[in-house]
Amino acid sequence: MDKNNTEQESYKLVSREYQRHNTQIAVKENIIGSKQFHVIAGPCAVESKGQLLETAWAVKEAGATLLRGGAFKPRSSPYSFQGLGEKGLKYLAEAREETGLPVVTEVMDVRDVELVASYVDIIQVGARNMQNFFLLREISKLDKPIILKRGQCATLKEWLMAAEYFLYGGNSKVILCERGIRTFEDYTRNTLDLSAVPALKNLSHLPVFVDPSHGTGKWELVAPMALAALAAGADGLLIEVHPNPENACSDGQQSLNLKNFALLMEDLRRLAPVLAREMVEQIE
Amino acid sequence: MDKNNTEQESYKLVSREYQRHNTQIAVKENIIGSKQFHVIAGPCAVESKGQLLETAWAVKEAGATLLRGGAFKPRSSPYSFQGLGEKGLKYLAEAREETGLPVVTEVMDVRDVELVASYVDIIQVGARNMQNFFLLREISKLDKPIILKRGQCATLKEWLMAAEYFLYGGNSKVILCERGIRTFEDYTRNTLDLSAVPALKNLSHLPVFVDPSHGTGKWELVAPMALAALAAGADGLLIEVHPNPENACSDGQQSLNLKNFALLMEDLRRLAPVLAREMVEQIE
Amino acid sequence: MDKNNTEQESYKLVSREYQRHNTQIAVKENIIGSKQFHVIAGPCAVESKGQLLETAWAVKEAGATLLRGGAFKPRSSPYSFQGLGEKGLKYLAEAREETGLPVVTEVMDVRDVELVASYVDIIQVGARNMQNFFLLREISKLDKPIILKRGQCATLKEWLMAAEYFLYGGNSKVILCERGIRTFEDYTRNTLDLSAVPALKNLSHLPVFVDPSHGTGKWELVAPMALAALAAGADGLLIEVHPNPENACSDGQQSLNLKNFALLMEDLRRLAPVLAREMVEQIE
Amino acid sequence: MDKNNTEQESYKLVSREYQRHNTQIAVKENIIGSKQFHVIAGPCAVESKGQLLETAWAVKEAGATLLRGGAFKPRSSPYSFQGLGEKGLKYLAEAREETGLPVVTEVMDVRDVELVASYVDIIQVGARNMQNFFLLREISKLDKPIILKRGQCATLKEWLMAAEYFLYGGNSKVILCERGIRTFEDYTRNTLDLSAVPALKNLSHLPVFVDPSHGTGKWELVAPMALAALAAGADGLLIEVHPNPENACSDGQQSLNLKNFALLMEDLRRLAPVLAREMVEQIE
Repeated sequence: MDKNNTEQESYKLVSREYQRHNTQIAVKENIIGSKQFHVIAGPCAVESKGQLLETAWAVKEAGATLLRGGAFKPRSSPYSFQGLGEKGLKYLAEAREETGLPVVTEVMDVRDVELVASYVDIIQVGARNMQNFFLLREISKLDKPIILKRGQCATLKEWLMAAEYFLYGGNSKVILCERGIRTFEDYTRNTLDLSAVPALKNLSHLPVFVDPSHGTGKWELVAPMALAALAAGADGLLIEVHPNPENACSDGQQSLNLKNFALLMEDLRRLAPVLAREMVEQIE
Repeated sequence: MDKNNTEQESYKLVSREYQRHNTQIAVKENIIGSKQFHVIAGPCAVESKGQLLETAWAVKEAGATLLRGGAFKPRSSPYSFQGLGEKGLKYLAEAREETGLPVVTEVMDVRDVELVASYVDIIQVGARNMQNFFLLREISKLDKPIILKRGQCATLKEWLMAAEYFLYGGNSKVILCERGIRTFEDYTRNTLDLSAVPALKNLSHLPVFVDPSHGTGKWELVAPMALAALAAGADGLLIEVHPNPENACSDGQQSLNLKNFALLMEDLRRLAPVLAREMVEQIE
Repeated sequence: MDKNNTEQESYKLVSREYQRHNTQIAVKENIIGSKQFHVIAGPCAVESKGQLLETAWAVKEAGATLLRGGAFKPRSSPYSFQGLGEKGLKYLAEAREETGLPVVTEVMDVRDVELVASYVDIIQVGARNMQNFFLLREISKLDKPIILKRGQCATLKEWLMAAEYFLYGGNSKVILCERGIRTFEDYTRNTLDLSAVPALKNLSHLPVFVDPSHGTGKWELVAPMALAALAAGADGLLIEVHPNPENACSDGQQSLNLKNFALLMEDLRRLAPVLAREMVEQIE
Repeated sequence: MDKNNTEQESYKLVSREYQRHNTQIAVKENIIGSKQFHVIAGPCAVESKGQLLETAWAVKEAGATLLRGGAFKPRSSPYSFQGLGEKGLKYLAEAREETGLPVVTEVMDVRDVELVASYVDIIQVGARNMQNFFLLREISKLDKPIILKRGQCATLKEWLMAAEYFLYGGNSKVILCERGIRTFEDYTRNTLDLSAVPALKNLSHLPVFVDPSHGTGKWELVAPMALAALAAGADGLLIEVHPNPENACSDGQQSLNLKNFALLMEDLRRLAPVLAREMVEQIE
């Protein structure tokens, strides 16, 4: 269960040995895991219809191909904002209607899996739930793409074993997302382990995304680490964007404002072709 | 959510400021959090009725006051033994009938909370679920003692905020259990942070237990660390014991056999009085 | 050089396989590594003759058998107090004259080894210099006991390989001292890894001490962790004591005042016999 | 001294507040810290004149602007290859004569500083010696560029305080080199913290290099992480290259062979201009 595992613990279906070619996952016109480089952007938490729509239109114009937003928020303290719940899901669905962007949100409660799945295009499993095995089993029954974030202190092997739960359960549309690990360094919120990207590309056939927002915890470090993730071979990014970060209900300090996000997208567009990647504009 | 929290995140009800006196929790004749020093012992996983009963009688004779055993096992790999499920719960209930020992087991699925609660005397939340907030909320509605294990990479503050979910939800019968944190050291499975014991005694009024089995991952280190936990001020221990560890379905390498457990209990009995602690024999 | 070493890297002379019996080191009448439990106490830094003497007499009366004090201080910042240098060594020698306590101090510069050795009874190598291999080689030529502190991020294997440099160089009077490792936890200054004590007892024949002052960074955690170290099987303790910690030039927050140190010594005297250890009073 | 420092500990001269413009360091025709992107390449250890010259010519042809090679090797075990010592320095000087590449090597012993300085163009301080303060002081007296590698468990603040020793001592030609930190992850030798690059660019005016060889410990991860370092804003790279890694005296598993190094240089040349960086060819 921990680092020094008994040999019985292992993974198979997610491994590169088991499947040589890269897994490609279609989300509407987008093919994740192909040469396309995708950016999933949006607020940490859905706070209001207005906030979500403003962000959705802005990130779409800037070139994001998917919209993210938290309806159920995992919060360390019971006194922190816990999210809008189903109302947040409704806003996400409406934002999709209006902008045409597929939407991604996190599910935390095994009892909410069906509900969340009925609203969104991609289900996210957060770092805290990477080893919530009953949640993994329930989600594995869905025919929907999954983003599996790396646990804060999960080894690559443990992460792949968690992903194995999905394929073992019948759902192979799994995207791995590096979001930083916990170390002694306290200047950054986490330590973004970009070497996980090429390492996972060797070990597994699953697409790999990077979340530089949680990975650094500081908005001013997000753009350089986003470019670095692209250069390291990531298939896409998950980025927190907020119309005005200083008033965000959560994670303001690590969210890009609309202008800085647009600048980052321009840099990514310049860099992608040199790395044999193409940025897709969202087609309506 | 991570180390560098926004100020809004905090805890209150679990703090020493909020309640000066130690919380004491009655489990049958036992008063956890009093001068009594309690040892919860048993196998990592309930494997069979025979294995559980043999262990139960042996740990009781040796002086353990509660019986532990896993019915639902969190396993990093889907290919590992996942536990006997409800059958395991039934065996635990039978072992209590026969030996009179109150029983402790872990619940992982929010949908199993009622079921598990109907069988056992203390509900355990494992390290992987310390921040499974919906599970915490569901358990907080019960009128049953809880053991909350520390997450593998949880700070003391995050651990106390997780415990706050229980008190905030109405259940104040919470026992904190240090079980080792993840570090760079790979000789031990985890690094047992015994300084958490006096630290938590300063920060909170809740009882603190220590699990040297998961904390070290090596049976030969369990006894010295168990004595150290008592000396550091812990209110009790959680120890994995198996009739023959080499054939255990899980965690054999960190389980004490019956003989070594009995020797440890003798040492604890010698040490306790010097530290103003008393070992209770289980009364039938 | 790092965690994943090539097999060529190893240790031999320090191992329990190479020498079954415990190494015992005589320092005047004291036999370190025997049944005796020794406490080395004193200020982090020698600040003045008065401060050192007051501390020396007080710790001796309380039962300490050796005096520690820093003359050369490793400081992260060039703007921090760097120690009194040779004047500090002179004060240590005078304190030994007056009190009869053997003295311990740290050497940092390979060019100071002879000088420091000419003043003190035990040479200390600090955590930052655990892998300062030229310093280790130079010290290995001395016929003087050594205290080798564990590096902040050294594995047990790396620590033993560092100790191997001394035995390989001809000096086998080596005492290992656990002083805490660096982890994500920031409530304590370091995470005191007490499991290192029984682990090292299995792996090596060298005496093992514990420094709960650096290991916790908080004076209020020092006493419980000192008792825990004794219970875990340590051969002794290294404790920072200061006449008035709030005015200390360094490490005030982790230093015991004279009264609290005396109380700790009483507790240790009560505990030792139960653990088959004897506390020696310093003989003049 | 550790994470929780007293306020007295700090840095000033290395900070961006103290000097707004980037420090630029001339090494022959090269200007480190300018728009130029420099690659320092060579074997972990100088093993023979032939091995060094073959590598030197190859990395020069591929576009490296400086040659690295270890003469004094810090080895965890006394039984590992310790380097050729002064003979290695002579080979480095000869390689410079023949190829015109400025050379870089590590100094470990304060007594060797003058000797090493007399042979090489840039002095390297390794991770293990980042807080070897007397060594830092001695080197600060030289009028020679320094590469200061990050300690395996050094925070950014501690790293900058170590660099402060050089500027405080009079030598401001300091290059910081991220080489990975120690974490729980054991798939890689260290965890390369690329977020340190933009973070240091905000905190300090010193040039920042990245060593993906030690940072990953696996040659197959070196190229993607080298590209990522460039994208993250690094001023250059330090890369281990060996004519046949499988027979290297040390670090073979993380060394690129000549062919793979040449391929990496081509990728860097394609990427640099997009990031407003220019790759310089070494001028003879």
